[in-house]
Amino acid sequence: MPAPLAVALGDPAGIGPEIVAKCWERREATGLPPFFAVGDSEALAAVWKGPIEAISEPGEAIGCFARALPLLRVAGGRRPTPGTPDLDGARNALDSLEIAVGLTRSGAAGGLVTGPVSKSQLYAIGFVHPGQTEFVAERCGVACDLVAMMLVGPDLKTVPVTVHVPIRDVPDGVTAEKIISKTRATVRGLQRQFGIEQPKIAIAGLNPHAGEDGAIGREEIDVIVPAIERLRQEGMDVMGPYPADTMFHRSARAQYDAAICMYHDQALLPIKTLYFDQGVNMTLGLPIVRTSPDHGTAFAIAGKNEAHPGAMMAAIQTAAAAAERIAQG
Amino acid sequence: MPAPLAVALGDPAGIGPEIVAKCWERREATGLPPFFAVGDSEALAAVWKGPIEAISEPGEAIGCFARALPLLRVAGGRRPTPGTPDLDGARNALDSLEIAVGLTRSGAAGGLVTGPVSKSQLYAIGFVHPGQTEFVAERCGVACDLVAMMLVGPDLKTVPVTVHVPIRDVPDGVTAEKIISKTRATVRGLQRQFGIEQPKIAIAGLNPHAGEDGAIGREEIDVIVPAIERLRQEGMDVMGPYPADTMFHRSARAQYDAAICMYHDQALLPIKTLYFDQGVNMTLGLPIVRTSPDHGTAFAIAGKNEAHPGAMMAAIQTAAAAAERIAQG
Repeated sequence: MPAPLAVALGDPAGIGPEIVAKCWERREATGLPPFFAVGDSEALAAVWKGPIEAISEPGEAIGCFARALPLLRVAGGRRPTPGTPDLDGARNALDSLEIAVGLTRSGAAGGLVTGPVSKSQLYAIGFVHPGQTEFVAERCGVACDLVAMMLVGPDLKTVPVTVHVPIRDVPDGVTAEKIISKTRATVRGLQRQFGIEQPKIAIAGLNPHAGEDGAIGREEIDVIVPAIERLRQEGMDVMGPYPADTMFHRSARAQYDAAICMYHDQALLPIKTLYFDQGVNMTLGLPIVRTSPDHGTAFAIAGKNEAHPGAMMAAIQTAAAAAERIAQG
Repeated sequence: MPAPLAVALGDPAGIGPEIVAKCWERREATGLPPFFAVGDSEALAAVWKGPIEAISEPGEAIGCFARALPLLRVAGGRRPTPGTPDLDGARNALDSLEIAVGLTRSGAAGGLVTGPVSKSQLYAIGFVHPGQTEFVAERCGVACDLVAMMLVGPDLKTVPVTVHVPIRDVPDGVTAEKIISKTRATVRGLQRQFGIEQPKIAIAGLNPHAGEDGAIGREEIDVIVPAIERLRQEGMDVMGPYPADTMFHRSARAQYDAAICMYHDQALLPIKTLYFDQGVNMTLGLPIVRTSPDHGTAFAIAGKNEAHPGAMMAAIQTAAAAAERIAQG
């Protein structure tokens, strides 16, 4: 029996607790593997009336998963109000994340799934990382520029080279070094976590029509093509640069295992357009498996029983499959 | 009986002649309205064995459309070789376009549909416009910055504010004036050509997360929001700016009639991802109806009977519907 997954609830006032509970409710119908929640029991109780069983260590989740949602309790402050984030909630989300990461690093949990947090609330309690990904990387002892964020949909995987960067700064932010390091992390991640021996990688251009031989921008010629050549010299199966607009239709995306994209929306737009309720964010380049649903806290609908658990379910399934693949070697 | 549509074949060595012929073949099954081709008979004969009937003026197309593809012949030079463009072909494509525009302006044709051309071949014969759209605008006496290119899919319409501009130049290329003029053209086009009385317009942000209140770029605050406010003062129903990645999934795109996008791929990527073989490019702001299939000459597959006529068919249907709407007032 593989170790159960640790699922951090995220911000207690967001939709995290609700969608984790909904995943547990559908565990049989969808064949979800055993997992346990990490967070505040009050956050769950505020939005869900189902059975919760407190556990004191991950292994206990296996025995009780069939009858109750196993919870590794991380005490919060005041009872959270769904839709109204506060600093107590941010502290609780951070404590839960810290504990879930530690349990996964130790091997007690088979993988880490993180619920959505509020960055502005985290910043207000002194959190200095740009997001959860960088925090997890640091706790794993990995430099941030060696990890890559991969968006995973049913038949499409994309990796942005630059992420939360204004479009104005993207052209200078896209360097050959970054394209190379993100592609390396992607290739290794596809091998290790998805069992794809020789992954096919498609690299997007930056400009319209991938620059049209320099007529609409030179970054393809000056930066992207040299990066592709170096990656090929390292033995990777890398194609491109391709015009981004025609890379993502059904028959195009069947040609590669992952697309390396130059900026945030180039990677996120196709995933969210095609798979809005199923997108998974997976961090590659870590010693542990880590996924999260590709959406935010959705405070506007928190506590209204309107949140769709699809992306959280996909995040749990993706993490479980990756953990199993790694366990099998 | 409305006037038939003029369909310029585009570059004789591209897939234009083949897909126009295929549209005619499927005229009954798909209920296509009468149209006539404008171009070189040799270009059609090189890729198609079906019946062609030479006409000398548009009205004759109505009578023969049921039994043959009506062709307003524009003599070319050497017989074209599919897949191998040459300067004779470029001249023929330009002559055909010129004639088709003139017939549409005069009212003899009900609308203009243009097949794909090779820009580099056109430039080589001294064509000074960036593309067919600008040429058509000039022939109609309309300044280029008053027309807008709208991409039309079955349930999504997008309009780029900047088009063939390197990403590096996009932030300065996106001005409030341009957003306003493209949105005006879009609203009027939706009213006039689609019969939508008070169109709902969604405006995309430029940066990831639409700038997140200035944290990831200021163009939303400095340029896009002021443009939206002015458009609202003019009485238009304009929403945004929205993060582009979450604007195009099914339930999001049901909320608006058209999305105004800041750059080429932001507008083209969702259309081509969802509707690769059905995308139509429609020019708004002209006194005539003009559409084209949203793809290029595809020289690589020309003459191989592999070209998909879906987008050309959609271009003809979209033009016919718009022409009919205008005729009804």
